Amino acid sequence: MVPVADKKESFVTEITPRSEDFSRWYLDVVRRAELADYSPVKGCMVIRPYGYAIWEHIQRLLDARFKATGHVNAYFPLFLPEGLLMKEKEHVEGFAPQVAWVTRGGDEDFADGQRLIIRPTSEVMIGTMYAKWIKSWRDLPVLINQWANVVRWEKVTRPFLRTTEFLWQEGHTAHETAEEGEAETLKILGLYKEFAETELAMPVIDGLKSDSEKFAGASRTYSIEALMGDGRALQAGTSHNLGQNFAKAFEIQFQGRDKTLQHAWTTSWGVSTRLIGGVIMTHGDDSGLVLPPHIAPYQVVIVPIPRGDWKQTVLPAAEAIASELGAKGVRVKLDASEENSPGWKFAEWELRGVPLRLEIGPKDIEKAQVFSARRDTREKAAIPLADLAARVPALLEEIQANLLARARVFREEHTTEVATWDEFKNAMEGRPGFVIAAWCGSADCEAQIKAETQATLRNIPLGSPRVDGQCVKCNGASHVKAWFAKAY
Amino acid sequence: MVPVADKKESFVTEITPRSEDFSRWYLDVVRRAELADYSPVKGCMVIRPYGYAIWEHIQRLLDARFKATGHVNAYFPLFLPEGLLMKEKEHVEGFAPQVAWVTRGGDEDFADGQRLIIRPTSEVMIGTMYAKWIKSWRDLPVLINQWANVVRWEKVTRPFLRTTEFLWQEGHTAHETAEEGEAETLKILGLYKEFAETELAMPVIDGLKSDSEKFAGASRTYSIEALMGDGRALQAGTSHNLGQNFAKAFEIQFQGRDKTLQHAWTTSWGVSTRLIGGVIMTHGDDSGLVLPPHIAPYQVVIVPIPRGDWKQTVLPAAEAIASELGAKGVRVKLDASEENSPGWKFAEWELRGVPLRLEIGPKDIEKAQVFSARRDTREKAAIPLADLAARVPALLEEIQANLLARARVFREEHTTEVATWDEFKNAMEGRPGFVIAAWCGSADCEAQIKAETQATLRNIPLGSPRVDGQCVKCNGASHVKAWFAKAY
Repeated sequence: MVPVADKKESFVTEITPRSEDFSRWYLDVVRRAELADYSPVKGCMVIRPYGYAIWEHIQRLLDARFKATGHVNAYFPLFLPEGLLMKEKEHVEGFAPQVAWVTRGGDEDFADGQRLIIRPTSEVMIGTMYAKWIKSWRDLPVLINQWANVVRWEKVTRPFLRTTEFLWQEGHTAHETAEEGEAETLKILGLYKEFAETELAMPVIDGLKSDSEKFAGASRTYSIEALMGDGRALQAGTSHNLGQNFAKAFEIQFQGRDKTLQHAWTTSWGVSTRLIGGVIMTHGDDSGLVLPPHIAPYQVVIVPIPRGDWKQTVLPAAEAIASELGAKGVRVKLDASEENSPGWKFAEWELRGVPLRLEIGPKDIEKAQVFSARRDTREKAAIPLADLAARVPALLEEIQANLLARARVFREEHTTEVATWDEFKNAMEGRPGFVIAAWCGSADCEAQIKAETQATLRNIPLGSPRVDGQCVKCNGASHVKAWFAKAY
Repeated sequence: MVPVADKKESFVTEITPRSEDFSRWYLDVVRRAELADYSPVKGCMVIRPYGYAIWEHIQRLLDARFKATGHVNAYFPLFLPEGLLMKEKEHVEGFAPQVAWVTRGGDEDFADGQRLIIRPTSEVMIGTMYAKWIKSWRDLPVLINQWANVVRWEKVTRPFLRTTEFLWQEGHTAHETAEEGEAETLKILGLYKEFAETELAMPVIDGLKSDSEKFAGASRTYSIEALMGDGRALQAGTSHNLGQNFAKAFEIQFQGRDKTLQHAWTTSWGVSTRLIGGVIMTHGDDSGLVLPPHIAPYQVVIVPIPRGDWKQTVLPAAEAIASELGAKGVRVKLDASEENSPGWKFAEWELRGVPLRLEIGPKDIEKAQVFSARRDTREKAAIPLADLAARVPALLEEIQANLLARARVFREEHTTEVATWDEFKNAMEGRPGFVIAAWCGSADCEAQIKAETQATLRNIPLGSPRVDGQCVKCNGASHVKAWFAKAY
């Protein structure tokens, strides 16, 4: 690890440069910014307060969107009886290899067949309850979301991106018709995309997964795919149209308007704490984290410059600014601690990704101004005190918009359309990113592409036009262009 | 079960009368009001959307109080390595008999000693992390809370009151001195009491638990105790001063101001979904749930009376009222469904405990008024449309205050101070409630009292004066009066 220093201040921040080793850089940022820590349980992380505050903003902003679209929250048990998981054939094949088993409770060992599984996802539990609750078309749609922890036994883990236990939301809905199920699946996909772009400043490609990448038991899986700073893709959210598969396995039936007994059409969809990993890898730089203002625990840090009688002059002014901005709804941290120098604080809060820093010293007081430094562009400017309450919220929105615009430019610069297999291989080797290529639709070609380049088919973007051409791999007839990338 | 009918309307609500069988009444209310349902996993409930919405309000109101007192949220793993639980001797004795064991993950069976426990509470995990994070007195206090699910293997369960898995918050703090640890423990106890009384309209007695009822591993446990409608007490929240017990077991040490290495002083505290059970049993009546407005999913239900051309006249007026009240921050449900009659709706929303009903029909439109019905007193009154936006929020606060006052009166009427053992036994048989009696402080007397009357020592209220007297059980010297009750 090469210690990185802010040259002018020479404070070591102990972060591996992004360009040197992206993966080490990521782990350094997670640890040094106190987002998460390793726990005594293999593969399970502790989400520390600074990281959890980001998750709370994500929850708040997403939850408001779910409620605005008619969804309600509920809570279903952590445990699934093992027999339940077995009911949907593809689902069990997908999840059985990676579940954790509870075989003893209190002083009782469970008999075989009576063991409990810790939910890797809750379709089977929720399907069982829906079968009880839904009787008539009048009971539909059922639009329920759950905020919960889930467990998937993973061999290789990385904080936020892949952990044995993680936090997520899982929506589960039931509908009267196939059309309504598909409409819900796409409505949520659109909600996820709008959320990721508006709040996380993370541009995403929304599209349809290939059959081999779809959710175990789904008819169709859609995803949003983001591009990380190292040119690898991150699946940031999925929305599944489950057709009648789970309704048939769990007997979710209702009396229709025509009095016949029908199976419901269900969907499920989720995003997780993985989004925090996405934010880190979309915006971060060699100085550490760069947080979009909408989800930053602190949007502004105020650093008073301790010169002369600063406690009588500068500090009260800093406190007044903090309370003025706080009253405007800005999340402010006033760092008036005396243990550390201003330079140390600058480096520390940059590392923690605070979008905007305000410095105020004796000279600023004389001039009735503060000095501002943006985290995204490092641009510095004096702001008159009188303008602060109006200027800071506007500046935060500028930063939010700039982060999204910058990430879009990065994605465009790292997206290549190729026509031939040689071009495909070159694109995957030469510079990573999204590669767009014609695909015949066969799982064989998809598997060969992955085997030879490690690239997986991320999705086929919504609204892709039909384009007749030749599959990049087999030269067979192709009607769509798919987006490929090496992925997390 | 005796079906209960609203005589005038004769709509069967299928709720056992409270006076006939309180326990059946409770289960009927939980089920019929769709607060919770049984799941396919023994002892685990599903919290349905209507019940979960109450929990969301509890979370929101409590979380704001935690944050206002300097606490932050974080998330720690669901699993505890079995070795960790063993580190604090009293703690393991208290919890080992009721934990669930994970013995297999993915395709791997865990060796003995490598098994995982599902957290019944997180002192041992959080203590392990605090030992890593805390180095100096400057790192103190650490004030962290977690919203999480926990699992305790219970033989007899009841929705909300005692379930194998439940949702709660658990605060875990570390301090520099014994005094600060005790101050935090009491601050949270006070916060819980104020919350329960202000938001749940549930009066509580805050006091110290006896040694035999304290948390496994704590130096001192304080609790808030509420009185339910059947005269049994409910422990509604606990705050534990853990002294240095966990700090010593987990080596939570810091360099003090005097440069010596010292053990931290820690606390832990929690309330759970059990509070919902407390709300049901404090306020409910034979018609079902009665919800305090502060935590009611819907504070007001508007029922339009479908006569004549109501869709052109009454319905738009009802919609205008709903949106006017909504804009004032009132949570409103407009029940304009045509499947059910107004009478059916009255009974249904009463059963679901909505604090205030507004009825509006063609005649009300003529008179520019609505008709209101309070859930708590069943008082009915006409409210001029022009007054509605001011009157409804005020009325909701009156209802909130009345529920608290009524519950206080009930508690006073069901609290008896006794001087002799015969009086004690009579009080416990004749009419249930709190019984105040002098107690010598011995665990033996406490155990005998429980064996003979089923009453347990709930707590010794804070601020109890020293009163010299004779123990109600053994006639030995006593200096305090304790509060006893049969309890959930």
